[in-house]
Amino acid sequence: MTEHATGIGWIGAGEEPLAAETHGEKAAWLSQAAALGLPVPPAFVIPAALVADLDAARPAIEAALAELEARAEARLGDAQNPLLVSVRPSAPGGGGGAPAILNIGVTQVTLPALAARHGEHVARDLYRRLIQSYGAGALGVEGEEFEYALYDAMKYAGVESETGLSTAELDELAGACLALIEDAGGAFPQDAGDQLHGAMAALAVAWLSPRAELRRTARGIGEGAGLSLIVQAMVLGLGAAPSGAGIAHPRDETSGEKVLTGRYLASAQGEEALMGLRTPTVLTVAEREIKGLSEPSLEEQCAAAVTLLADAADRLEVAFGESFSLEFTVSAGATQILEARPARRSARAAVRIAVELAERGAISREEALLRVDPAFLDDHLHPSIAPDATRDLIGQGLPASPGAVSGPLVFSPGAAEAAAAAGRPAILALIETGPEDIRGMHAALGVLTVRGGMTSHAALVARGLGRPCVVGVKDLELDRGAGVLRARDGRNFNEGDVVTVDGGEGQVLAGRVETVPPEITGAFATLLQWADAERRMGVRANADTGADAIVARGFNAEGIGLCRTEHMFFQRGRILAMRQMIMAEDEAARRRALEALLPMQRDDFVDLFQAMAGLPVVIRMLDPPLHEFLPHGEAEMAEMAESLDVPVSKVKARAAELAEFNPMLGNRGCRIGIAYPEIYQMQARAIFEAACEVAARSGQPVRPEIMIPLVSAVRELELLKRHIEAVAAEVRAERGEMVEYHVGVMIETPRAALRAGEIADQADFLSFGTNDLTQLVFGLSRDDAGRFIPDYVAQGVYSHDPFHTLDLEGVGEIMRIATERARAHRPDIPIGLCGEHGGDPESIRFCEESGFDYVSCSPFRVPIARLAAAQATIRARRNGTGRDKEPK
Amino acid sequence: MTEHATGIGWIGAGEEPLAAETHGEKAAWLSQAAALGLPVPPAFVIPAALVADLDAARPAIEAALAELEARAEARLGDAQNPLLVSVRPSAPGGGGGAPAILNIGVTQVTLPALAARHGEHVARDLYRRLIQSYGAGALGVEGEEFEYALYDAMKYAGVESETGLSTAELDELAGACLALIEDAGGAFPQDAGDQLHGAMAALAVAWLSPRAELRRTARGIGEGAGLSLIVQAMVLGLGAAPSGAGIAHPRDETSGEKVLTGRYLASAQGEEALMGLRTPTVLTVAEREIKGLSEPSLEEQCAAAVTLLADAADRLEVAFGESFSLEFTVSAGATQILEARPARRSARAAVRIAVELAERGAISREEALLRVDPAFLDDHLHPSIAPDATRDLIGQGLPASPGAVSGPLVFSPGAAEAAAAAGRPAILALIETGPEDIRGMHAALGVLTVRGGMTSHAALVARGLGRPCVVGVKDLELDRGAGVLRARDGRNFNEGDVVTVDGGEGQVLAGRVETVPPEITGAFATLLQWADAERRMGVRANADTGADAIVARGFNAEGIGLCRTEHMFFQRGRILAMRQMIMAEDEAARRRALEALLPMQRDDFVDLFQAMAGLPVVIRMLDPPLHEFLPHGEAEMAEMAESLDVPVSKVKARAAELAEFNPMLGNRGCRIGIAYPEIYQMQARAIFEAACEVAARSGQPVRPEIMIPLVSAVRELELLKRHIEAVAAEVRAERGEMVEYHVGVMIETPRAALRAGEIADQADFLSFGTNDLTQLVFGLSRDDAGRFIPDYVAQGVYSHDPFHTLDLEGVGEIMRIATERARAHRPDIPIGLCGEHGGDPESIRFCEESGFDYVSCSPFRVPIARLAAAQATIRARRNGTGRDKEPK
Repeated sequence: MTEHATGIGWIGAGEEPLAAETHGEKAAWLSQAAALGLPVPPAFVIPAALVADLDAARPAIEAALAELEARAEARLGDAQNPLLVSVRPSAPGGGGGAPAILNIGVTQVTLPALAARHGEHVARDLYRRLIQSYGAGALGVEGEEFEYALYDAMKYAGVESETGLSTAELDELAGACLALIEDAGGAFPQDAGDQLHGAMAALAVAWLSPRAELRRTARGIGEGAGLSLIVQAMVLGLGAAPSGAGIAHPRDETSGEKVLTGRYLASAQGEEALMGLRTPTVLTVAEREIKGLSEPSLEEQCAAAVTLLADAADRLEVAFGESFSLEFTVSAGATQILEARPARRSARAAVRIAVELAERGAISREEALLRVDPAFLDDHLHPSIAPDATRDLIGQGLPASPGAVSGPLVFSPGAAEAAAAAGRPAILALIETGPEDIRGMHAALGVLTVRGGMTSHAALVARGLGRPCVVGVKDLELDRGAGVLRARDGRNFNEGDVVTVDGGEGQVLAGRVETVPPEITGAFATLLQWADAERRMGVRANADTGADAIVARGFNAEGIGLCRTEHMFFQRGRILAMRQMIMAEDEAARRRALEALLPMQRDDFVDLFQAMAGLPVVIRMLDPPLHEFLPHGEAEMAEMAESLDVPVSKVKARAAELAEFNPMLGNRGCRIGIAYPEIYQMQARAIFEAACEVAARSGQPVRPEIMIPLVSAVRELELLKRHIEAVAAEVRAERGEMVEYHVGVMIETPRAALRAGEIADQADFLSFGTNDLTQLVFGLSRDDAGRFIPDYVAQGVYSHDPFHTLDLEGVGEIMRIATERARAHRPDIPIGLCGEHGGDPESIRFCEESGFDYVSCSPFRVPIARLAAAQATIRARRNGTGRDKEPK
Repeated sequence: MTEHATGIGWIGAGEEPLAAETHGEKAAWLSQAAALGLPVPPAFVIPAALVADLDAARPAIEAALAELEARAEARLGDAQNPLLVSVRPSAPGGGGGAPAILNIGVTQVTLPALAARHGEHVARDLYRRLIQSYGAGALGVEGEEFEYALYDAMKYAGVESETGLSTAELDELAGACLALIEDAGGAFPQDAGDQLHGAMAALAVAWLSPRAELRRTARGIGEGAGLSLIVQAMVLGLGAAPSGAGIAHPRDETSGEKVLTGRYLASAQGEEALMGLRTPTVLTVAEREIKGLSEPSLEEQCAAAVTLLADAADRLEVAFGESFSLEFTVSAGATQILEARPARRSARAAVRIAVELAERGAISREEALLRVDPAFLDDHLHPSIAPDATRDLIGQGLPASPGAVSGPLVFSPGAAEAAAAAGRPAILALIETGPEDIRGMHAALGVLTVRGGMTSHAALVARGLGRPCVVGVKDLELDRGAGVLRARDGRNFNEGDVVTVDGGEGQVLAGRVETVPPEITGAFATLLQWADAERRMGVRANADTGADAIVARGFNAEGIGLCRTEHMFFQRGRILAMRQMIMAEDEAARRRALEALLPMQRDDFVDLFQAMAGLPVVIRMLDPPLHEFLPHGEAEMAEMAESLDVPVSKVKARAAELAEFNPMLGNRGCRIGIAYPEIYQMQARAIFEAACEVAARSGQPVRPEIMIPLVSAVRELELLKRHIEAVAAEVRAERGEMVEYHVGVMIETPRAALRAGEIADQADFLSFGTNDLTQLVFGLSRDDAGRFIPDYVAQGVYSHDPFHTLDLEGVGEIMRIATERARAHRPDIPIGLCGEHGGDPESIRFCEESGFDYVSCSPFRVPIARLAAAQATIRARRNGTGRDKEPK
């Protein structure tokens, strides 16, 4: 540390601004404000390095005090011209210290001069205030004791507020407070110098108490952080009106709009306006009128103060690219700023402030992009419960998919569909969901499940569908037989009873609750435009239908990174053909059933290609094991048997034949394509025919990207590519048209990652399927993990849920190996990520650092991904690891 | 290629031996025999390089022929002193060519001199033999046509064999054969030189035919392999007795014992003794008497020939370290060797031959160890069906666990246990098995399952238990309700009907079938001793009980590499306590139930430690998900509820609560230890108490190695180590004894492999659990894969079943990464492998190359592993990658 860095700093016009690292954040900002020429009382700052040994620093402090006395033209403890000072804590990271001690320097010696200068009443008030705050802050007397004394005095005097106390009553109160100190074994110093050094020592000691340290740890302030101390000339806030203290906010905390709001309390010091002892007023006439208050605002009491504050806030914004709240004191009409701290703001306000600061040139667009936490945007993208609404909580679960929605309960996917068909809203409540419930989930407005974790099927599908969803609501018991949802408090909810699902908070509420809608307009839209201009990586959406694709385009997705074709088969009218295919006795019968599915699949792809007009569309071939398409219950099996006109015993036999112990690790993904080539052939044909059709209609070529799932050996890719090429040749021969297409691999088994080099030789692109890759790297089932992952995270076994944020040490590590190997074989192979992680900012940063070409995520997370990708690009550039941006 | 390598080579005493690569294997071995001084007719060999263009090579061939004529003191085609020669194919890899053409040089010109030398009858016989073999071999006439002509002649002459034909009749036969050639548009050359060159050209052309190439491919002979040709002076085998031809085997093909056996046919040439036209005799009196033959043996016809052959075989063994079968011809009492080829042998014979060759110094012990394929030993280690037994096949499945056993059928584990309790044998037939069937499998003599692959639960457990087992017997249908096993041919088998399971062949046979027992004695035992002296790696056994451990020690296992503690809980009397634990409402109740299990576990470990006296014992903490310990059926649940005195609804609720979609990826392994610390604590206590007890009893310290399963994060290890240390401290305090123990990690998730560096910082040892690691690297469930892996291997998607032989490209790759990282952090950390692969030779070689410290496998595969480990050590040394051997 340099001599300068450890030296005592000065706050005032013409002084060098101080650094937060050495002198704490409060001193740093305040010195900036003073340097800008704003009215700030003169002060010196003892840096943490000196506070650590105050005795040793005493000569330096004495010298600084002398200088301060010179600047203030008054002397501490002087009987004729006494200086009063405050001692304020200034810590790194802001806040975190004990309360400031004000009015130091009021003694029996200085009282007469103070009385002469401010009047007897103010002098007595200053005296009893110092005794109180010094007693509590420096001598260890319980603050409550002094409050009781004050209340007693007010009660005895018959006044509502301390301002009503007479000079004599204040004197008596001071006496009572001194007695309290003596009772506690303390002694109030009558020497002003002792007061100052005592106050500094007390704040330094308080900072090191275990309780203070715990508090700092909880706030994420590092262990070795030291406290600096500000010694500042007092501005009284008492005496001749207008005098008082308050806080000014230059922007609306919720919206970020530039409107001056705040609190002001006449005849007050420090933070009294916020403490609630007396009712403060507001700053402006406008705010007073909106709130319907009668007490005159500060503007009406002292218009100059409001002008000064508005102007100061504005100048600070421009100068430092930040919006500050200002603590201020008015002394006989003169306003002084005692603290300038970055203003609190909602996520929405943060966006607006960042954008407006950039627009006025206070910060760069790059800086504006970095200012907004992408994760906070999530709340923006869905309706949420109105902040002042009453919540009648009946179950707390996990916030699986954000957004809030109210509606009548249904207990089966079928009932949800029936409701949707009849135009009625429905909230679908289930124990858990499976693929066959997807139609029902689509039909419902919101979903709640009793079981499941953040990455359960219900959570994933709901996020994909953009449906508010709460999972793992253990407080609720669903008795489907009785058709009742039982809350732990004994209340029962039947089908049709209205509840509200708050996916943002993971709560299920009784009844209908007011919500506020999402918006991507104004500053938010501007910020995302800037993000698009900045980011290197493409952002695509995981979308399975034309409708999904339209939503995704609405969020400016640059293509589809994952279309899961199996979801199409669960739609009404298709599941039967699918089941016919599964029940087929031989290849010929299977081909017949597939022929019935072909036109439907083709139509699906026509919709997709049209919606994405010209943008890339990655279509994943059928992935789930076939048994997922069969019903489970006896009744459903009987129904299916009747529909297909086969004996129910045959349905059961086939189901038993296909059943698997670990479906996740079973006959699925490309293994199905190998076992039943005709299925993938049908899908390839549907893709090519749809591409021809849309190309012919739009006059624009369509270039589908066919993705092979669950590859574990390069030979799988070779075999399936051959099948797909054969179909392409057939379609080309039939239609006389050439469809350009790519065949790529979804890297989701560790083996595919390890063999990525030779896979890259054969594949046109790679896309990491990080959901399954995470399952396999950890040996952890997404659907089963929900029960113990929270406990694991709580015990610190995993630092976070790896299905939510990419596990960089394991999953990321094998992705790095894969990327390295793939690029060694083929430096220009496009690489993407299409798991749920594609919408997670941390994971997106990893993708940028790994040089991926794009990420793909749920449509509703596309805006988050756009911003996160831009931030990742900026950070990489700043780290010196930036990459060239290629045309997307 | 050097001039020398492509040049014509010579076979004869004093000649340089020829290389198989240039002159083919037949010529190489024969030149070695001649060089050794054994009687071999003089011959020159045209290498493949010259055979490729015979025209160009003609001058060289003519020169060689002149030299051969000089050596044989006769001239091809000479009217006074004619030379006869044969042309024989000599190919790399042995065999594979068209038949040799003999007696070249018999023409109208040479016939008189031949008649003068050998008699008219022999001369005529030679003539018609040449016409026949030349017509078939060089002129393209169907060989059958000549055979019909021969049969006609014999029939007309009224004789049983061609030797009965008179000179005139042979002449007529020759005429008939010449007519056949003319009918086919050919012409038999009367010039001896034309005959020679025609024969050579014909063999060269036949070698290149697509059919011949296909045959070579099927035998694994490389594509570019060329044919060499041997031109050799004829030894007739006809004429004055004793004359004839035969084959001699110096050792018994099945046992490897040194006993001369073979076939000999008087008045015969080449391989006629093996062709079955006439009945040959045997070589020795001893063999004749054993077989009860009346025809005099060669020994009785020409004792000198037998002495010469026995001596020749013996000298060849010593000289070349190999046992050869000899093709020979006797001409008027003089024996000549025409071919020496490595003798066919059974696995058992291979062991004995290798050991005896090493014992007599013909090969090194190292070479003997490399000669025996460890995989072939498997059949040695179990009883097998007697070779001559009749097999009444009722179902073909997969050979899951070798050995053959007969017994009455049972259709439930309970019935198998009841049978065992009553001392009755039982063969357990099930659809599939699960952990709760293990007791029944233990009680049964053999197991068959209708479903499942080579690595299904049934197969794994059966291999571990050393029980013969056939899985995936699709031909059989098990109707448990009706209590009947239905064969595809309509036969029904009820409980009690006797069947035989042949685990070596994967067959289920009706009735009882005779078996022959295994043995590890004699040469086999010697070989394994040598292997133990040679190998660097330790070989441990996977053993779960004291009984298993005793079997393992019988096979010289050097410790236990994996004791699966869960198997202990399925034993009668324990499963109830286990279920009580699972049903416990809180930790206290769980601890009470665990207290009941503690003494049982302690006894288990006492048994293990005693059986392994002083050897290391790796105990894996509880691994399977808890729901595996609950019953599945309604009836069993009701029974359990009654036993535990809880309502059946509670049992069902708990089962539903614990049920998992993918149990393999669920709440198992160390996750159980984290969720329910008291379970691992009980197990640790049982281990430490047992160690104290056995140490006190034996006076020898016991050092248990505790292994944590399914680790995916280093923090899991840290937490569980802390629990274990606490228990160790408690036991130490209670008993006043210090138990030394190690805590290691089973590396079975890809993440653990990737984080092996930091895991090695915390773990005392690492052991790769390659079963689960393979499942996770491939994304492939062991229990479900059986249905498509065979198809995958057939289509070449996987080169082999990765659950059988380690997948080096994927699983091996991540193991290499893990080993590298672990050793980088801690170079001396012991690393082992304890999956099924520990008994697979290829996988063991990988472990040696990776520098592992030991492998661990099923007790019954320990001998295989011992040999394979020795081979791996030798091969590594030869590759220059050998490692120092450390004391095991």
